[in-house]
Amino acid sequence: MALAEYVRAHREQFLEELIAFCRIPSVTAEGDDGWEAARWVARRLEALGADVAFWGINGAPPVVYAELGPANASRTLLIYNHYDVQPADPLDLWETPPFEPHVRGGHLYARGVADNKANIVARAQALEAWLAVQGELPLRIKWIVEGEEENSSPHVAQVAAQHGERFADADGCLWESGYKDSAGRHVLYCGLKGIAYLELCSRGAAQDLHSSWGTLVPNAAWRLVWALATLKAEDETITVEGLMDHVRPPDPAELEHVRRLPFDAAAIRERHAISEFVGGVDGPDALVRHLYAPTCTICGLCSGYGGPGTKTVLPAHAVAKVDFRLVPDLTPELVRDLVEAHLRRRGFADVEVILVDGVRPARSPVDSAVAQAAAAAARDVGGHEPVIYPNMAASGPMYDLCDAFGIPAVGFGVGWPGSNVHAPNENVRLDDYFEGILMMAAFVERFAQGT
Amino acid sequence: MALAEYVRAHREQFLEELIAFCRIPSVTAEGDDGWEAARWVARRLEALGADVAFWGINGAPPVVYAELGPANASRTLLIYNHYDVQPADPLDLWETPPFEPHVRGGHLYARGVADNKANIVARAQALEAWLAVQGELPLRIKWIVEGEEENSSPHVAQVAAQHGERFADADGCLWESGYKDSAGRHVLYCGLKGIAYLELCSRGAAQDLHSSWGTLVPNAAWRLVWALATLKAEDETITVEGLMDHVRPPDPAELEHVRRLPFDAAAIRERHAISEFVGGVDGPDALVRHLYAPTCTICGLCSGYGGPGTKTVLPAHAVAKVDFRLVPDLTPELVRDLVEAHLRRRGFADVEVILVDGVRPARSPVDSAVAQAAAAAARDVGGHEPVIYPNMAASGPMYDLCDAFGIPAVGFGVGWPGSNVHAPNENVRLDDYFEGILMMAAFVERFAQGT
Repeated sequence: MALAEYVRAHREQFLEELIAFCRIPSVTAEGDDGWEAARWVARRLEALGADVAFWGINGAPPVVYAELGPANASRTLLIYNHYDVQPADPLDLWETPPFEPHVRGGHLYARGVADNKANIVARAQALEAWLAVQGELPLRIKWIVEGEEENSSPHVAQVAAQHGERFADADGCLWESGYKDSAGRHVLYCGLKGIAYLELCSRGAAQDLHSSWGTLVPNAAWRLVWALATLKAEDETITVEGLMDHVRPPDPAELEHVRRLPFDAAAIRERHAISEFVGGVDGPDALVRHLYAPTCTICGLCSGYGGPGTKTVLPAHAVAKVDFRLVPDLTPELVRDLVEAHLRRRGFADVEVILVDGVRPARSPVDSAVAQAAAAAARDVGGHEPVIYPNMAASGPMYDLCDAFGIPAVGFGVGWPGSNVHAPNENVRLDDYFEGILMMAAFVERFAQGT
Repeated sequence: MALAEYVRAHREQFLEELIAFCRIPSVTAEGDDGWEAARWVARRLEALGADVAFWGINGAPPVVYAELGPANASRTLLIYNHYDVQPADPLDLWETPPFEPHVRGGHLYARGVADNKANIVARAQALEAWLAVQGELPLRIKWIVEGEEENSSPHVAQVAAQHGERFADADGCLWESGYKDSAGRHVLYCGLKGIAYLELCSRGAAQDLHSSWGTLVPNAAWRLVWALATLKAEDETITVEGLMDHVRPPDPAELEHVRRLPFDAAAIRERHAISEFVGGVDGPDALVRHLYAPTCTICGLCSGYGGPGTKTVLPAHAVAKVDFRLVPDLTPELVRDLVEAHLRRRGFADVEVILVDGVRPARSPVDSAVAQAAAAAARDVGGHEPVIYPNMAASGPMYDLCDAFGIPAVGFGVGWPGSNVHAPNENVRLDDYFEGILMMAAFVERFAQGT
């Protein structure tokens, strides 16, 4: 009660703090060096009494590493977050500028607020409230806040190899973010898909030519289109030779659990203004596909002239950005090799395949102590049963930080289904935000107690 | 001789004049209103004593129309040029800025110099020299200089319908530009391909989404790739249903003429740094394909994220710019209708087909008086036999201005095979430029004489 009182008394100040953090345009994927956001995080955690270090690798955005709470606590919690955010384009679809946070209709709009700056700040504010009310934390916390998550965390494996002994003793890990579903239930998850982000590049003539040469000169854009069309069929079957052979069939018991999970397919279709899901799946089948199927997604196509009006040009270069979401036992390197071999066999040796970055898929049990503590906290604060997913469709470096050290993980956070993660008008609802502070405090208590 | 003397004495001044014209960034396809270049042309022709009018249509870049020479001359020559130029991107591949003309190694580099500003200026300077030396032109000239050629001349048909009686009496037409081949022979041509410039647009969800939704939500980029792949096969066969049925087989005699034309396939491949032509054609077969085959060329692909690094986005929109070069009896509207019907039949009714603009193919006889006058002028000035093409691979509004009024046409100009038309570092050779002034004067004399 005292803690809830503290949070209530600090609402304005807490919101101002979140807004200040969201003002930092930490788009490290587009060249921001990350230091402004990293320093902000470091100062925020130092204010809680944390020992903070910056782990830097070759000029990459630094990893903020913080330890706080009693060194002799019986339990240690690892927390993973990231201070970088997605690029903000297309800018013209934002109702207010992405890095000028704006409150309207009970929502806070800003790039990165849901993914995952609000979670960082809410967690820190929960610890502040705990310390103010209780004087001391009930567990040891080891907190990793990296700056390249939206770039598929290219340095996390190296950081884990170099500094892993600092946090390998953690009893569980709280992952970066999460959300409530459309019925208002907290959604927890214990695994993530991996990702292989590829660039496919084709080259034609020495330079762009007048398009009348289309009779005789190879066109990089056509080569790329034909190559792409061999990777996935119109019915959404991934046709990269051999790829599906590496997909481990889901455990039947887990599958049963998943098929019983609430899943409002119609609400999802309505939100995205689509008439049906790809391949015509629906209901529990759609959820199973969402959690267990690998994907092959064109994230970007770029070739020739894209401006207004017309330009009659035969493009010399064409690039596709393609991400594969991975399930066990696919790995980024395996996917790169399979795509490369596939294209070579199909006569597209001229299309270069670059693995820009990738992370492996991760899984941990739904009945781990850390997952059960999160479920109990959701019941404590939300007053209802949460939904526990064994696996999420999104990705993150959970394998390198958790699976590799045998640390079970769980994720929850302050998002909602309309948070527009990775899209214009990203937002969180303020009510969710302040409830999230209380849920973090309840989770800390539950996990420290071992219940 | 006196005329050549005049040109020699005015070399520097003539070059300065050309440079001044090339400084005008008349990229009307990207929003320039065309007036700066149009006024420049009008002033230049008024200085020759021409009566000049601006034909404007709904705020489009104006058409400059000039008449000069004795009203009672026995022959009338129509000239067609355009003052607009291609967009200059990719800017980083230009050695000097596209609108800061630069002379080096005997070449003048500037966007639009070869296509076709140097021809406009050389033709005007030839008439200036003629008038200075002879006092009066030997024929009547009617000169159309439009400003939307690089945009497929969307208003020329309307202009021709409205003002056609002003120039319908012309005995022949000199087309905008031309070039010498790699052996230094003047290349003449009496026909052009048409063009249908389409935009294919696909739409998926209401907005861009996090790419983890690739499991369930339709991806506009994939839809577009699959749709495009049905339009042309990897062997470069156009597979739009019914399209090839409308291609009129070439006249056997004309085909024989074409197969005897010089064509240095190896030089073309070397210039464009390609190892072979599409479909493996070579020699005379390649030339026949170049002149008589319709094309289907992706000029631009644009969807999702195209910036540096990675963005894991599921694109809601995707656009392809596709141009079809047309031969008789294809028309822009027919191609649009065929593509639309084809996509609908193949299950791509969600892909919108927009005819952005188009022009019909044009043909006139290689033995017309105007073509023969051009051939004689090439012999007079170059001292060798020119190469006469019945048809060129490029496009322009020749049908609307010539074929529709029964006016035979011929094209020649000051380009060379390395002019980089529609590409970075566009240029003309200064020697070709000054020879082009003399050739225009010789052509005027020959055509006036009827030889």
